[in-house]
Amino acid sequence: MTGTKDAGRPLGVAVLGMGTVGTEVVRVLRDHADDLRSRVGAPLVLRGVAVRDISKDRGLPAELLTTDASALVARDDVDLVVEVMGGIDPARKLIGDALNAGKSVVTANKALLADYTGELAAAAEGSRADLYFEAAVAGAIPVVRPLIQSLSGDRVNKVVGIVNGTTNFILSAMDETGAAYDDVLAEATALGYAEADPTADVEGYDAAAKAAILASLAFHTRVTAADVYREGISKITAEDLETASAVGCTVKLLAICERVSAGPGEPTLEEGGKDRVSVRVYPALIPRKHPLASVNGAFNAVVVEADNAGRLMFYGQGAGGAPTASAVLGDLVMAARNKFYGGRAPGESVYAELPIAPIGDTPTRYHVNLQVEDRPGVLAAVADTFAQHGVSISTVRQQGHGDGARLVVVTHHAVESSLADTVAVLADMESVTAVTSVLRLEGTEE
Amino acid sequence: MTGTKDAGRPLGVAVLGMGTVGTEVVRVLRDHADDLRSRVGAPLVLRGVAVRDISKDRGLPAELLTTDASALVARDDVDLVVEVMGGIDPARKLIGDALNAGKSVVTANKALLADYTGELAAAAEGSRADLYFEAAVAGAIPVVRPLIQSLSGDRVNKVVGIVNGTTNFILSAMDETGAAYDDVLAEATALGYAEADPTADVEGYDAAAKAAILASLAFHTRVTAADVYREGISKITAEDLETASAVGCTVKLLAICERVSAGPGEPTLEEGGKDRVSVRVYPALIPRKHPLASVNGAFNAVVVEADNAGRLMFYGQGAGGAPTASAVLGDLVMAARNKFYGGRAPGESVYAELPIAPIGDTPTRYHVNLQVEDRPGVLAAVADTFAQHGVSISTVRQQGHGDGARLVVVTHHAVESSLADTVAVLADMESVTAVTSVLRLEGTEE
Repeated sequence: MTGTKDAGRPLGVAVLGMGTVGTEVVRVLRDHADDLRSRVGAPLVLRGVAVRDISKDRGLPAELLTTDASALVARDDVDLVVEVMGGIDPARKLIGDALNAGKSVVTANKALLADYTGELAAAAEGSRADLYFEAAVAGAIPVVRPLIQSLSGDRVNKVVGIVNGTTNFILSAMDETGAAYDDVLAEATALGYAEADPTADVEGYDAAAKAAILASLAFHTRVTAADVYREGISKITAEDLETASAVGCTVKLLAICERVSAGPGEPTLEEGGKDRVSVRVYPALIPRKHPLASVNGAFNAVVVEADNAGRLMFYGQGAGGAPTASAVLGDLVMAARNKFYGGRAPGESVYAELPIAPIGDTPTRYHVNLQVEDRPGVLAAVADTFAQHGVSISTVRQQGHGDGARLVVVTHHAVESSLADTVAVLADMESVTAVTSVLRLEGTEE
Repeated sequence: MTGTKDAGRPLGVAVLGMGTVGTEVVRVLRDHADDLRSRVGAPLVLRGVAVRDISKDRGLPAELLTTDASALVARDDVDLVVEVMGGIDPARKLIGDALNAGKSVVTANKALLADYTGELAAAAEGSRADLYFEAAVAGAIPVVRPLIQSLSGDRVNKVVGIVNGTTNFILSAMDETGAAYDDVLAEATALGYAEADPTADVEGYDAAAKAAILASLAFHTRVTAADVYREGISKITAEDLETASAVGCTVKLLAICERVSAGPGEPTLEEGGKDRVSVRVYPALIPRKHPLASVNGAFNAVVVEADNAGRLMFYGQGAGGAPTASAVLGDLVMAARNKFYGGRAPGESVYAELPIAPIGDTPTRYHVNLQVEDRPGVLAAVADTFAQHGVSISTVRQQGHGDGARLVVVTHHAVESSLADTVAVLADMESVTAVTSVLRLEGTEE
């Protein structure tokens, strides 16, 4: 790589955390210093890296390593802080301290941002520093910046993403091989695609944090993880994938951020009221021809629908050291340019303050799998139960005979509460042996 | 939509041109003023629209329309200029005047940018104004901003895009229906997907301008339209699509921007030399399983490959009034925010100054379609001709008999000049009735 020789005063960089992402960020800072200098206008100089264990050999001069992250952030010669340690504490305080001191921060910390963007953005605003976080959602895929900047003149109506690589690896493998959840999870763990404790991924917490961030940006409204309805994939069975396949679908863990109309009895947008925001993470059936259906393995993709832009899709590697580092370094160059040229990143935009729609109000389609007694009239009785609760049926498919008889019901759009009431009654019916699964169906036009 | 009430001094906007894009930009400026004000921090006020014919009813107050674009740009109360008139003159001078006067400019003008970005960027730099142009490439799809900003800490190696909707509509239709080029072009014209004079689209000029812009951004090197090797689709036949299909491919007009190694005898990157940039637009076979193969109709998509980010794909509507307006308005909000908060857009980055690799040096795979005499030894003679010119064959397929006998040869990577020499000899061979087509093959791993 090449670079110009004349440049401004060096900008000092502190890196907090040296896991896979931090290691790659440090490598690029050192190996590609010339290019970075040319792109920023001034040299980026690594002042230090905060690590937990200073004795481990990381191929770095010892004087660059410290266990005192606070002191590193506070150094006078540190202008920019890269936080890739993860977790809420001490990252929250370190980032706050940096921003309050006027140092710009680049972070990949979705859990922190999902709950504390407001606090951190206020600190950045107060000292005119930048807070960048492209790497917090979907790794190297630019989706934060497009939502904040590119779509700032449009009205976003929906964001649907596959934003967790671990669960997508598991569901893709279950779909391809027909294997059971536990077996595929064990394989994912062995391959390093799942953590020893996979809860944050498989129960949807990671995706929910990302959904909160995406919804905040898309709808100019502060959305936190607590606002996100969340179900994980740990109850998905091989049979779910099989029945999905039978109706031309696969199962994906989706993060869905959607603009929905005002609640019952509330003034609509046209009447001077407000739309609401529905944010939810759950495994759902999607048709195989849907663009997200072919996003397999550890890949991520995000579909954005806006009034004027129409449907956009962003696809790429959503995790891993190098891809995440790419996003971090892009933010770092931009933050450094702002330091050098006197610019500012766009601040938090939460003016719209749209209310959150409860999951019970959110209409979706459902795919209900029932084990039933194999005798005449069962289908009619089941259909009648749906009708009594105002849930309109799109298709019913009867499969198998005798003890293995099953009904697979696909509904039109229904609200969660009506469907829940329907399922409660179905479960009590004598002719219904079991409600095997209830999954949502997304990505159909209906 | 909702908006806050307190805001800064109004920012004046001039819109140059009121075609499909300008009309949509003006509509949003007027209909969504509250949202835009909340996002910018200050009201955006439309000062005027420059049009050619002032007598046409455009649903706007007469005092907003003018035929004097120069005077509109020069108004003291105009802070931001949106150029959506297209063409080189007078757009070039109007944008230059605006930038020289410190007014930020948002433009969708790919032809102008492909040749004059240097001049315009210098004007912007001189007055510390912004020049934004997301809408110039791939309509609503954010690709300019991701290349400039998100990937500014990465090394881009390749950009491959379907960036012209007209030609993609034509090739998609030929692929689906088996129809001839002229028939599909006539249909595209009737449907409004092709202009009365389709030359700029079908001969690849539009895609070449976009390729020049993408290459400039990807490689931090000034690339103009003249640097782009260009072939259009007007010679593509129904038979080309058919033989492509027979080898599991379709045909797409691709804009390819690629980092290639130093020329023969020149120092390599490792020896202190420089990589080169190959920029080319041509119809090429791509495997149906390649992500770009399923981008059909008027849609656009751009694939970016970078060292750390890996392969990213951006997909959406690449043309049309509303999608292009979405990109223009996103830029406008960013330019206006910079005016309000005192920020700056990233300026032109051309420090790398990589040389352009001539097309003759650029290795690609080829798909050569020959009409041959149906007698023993022809295949061997043809294969020998390829071998004599150092072009390695991947597969040969013999089709038909008698007068209709054909050979379809797919090569491994070969440089253009070797292939051209091969084809010249083939054309002179007695047993070769005709070289029916020579198309490149892209998107294979080989």
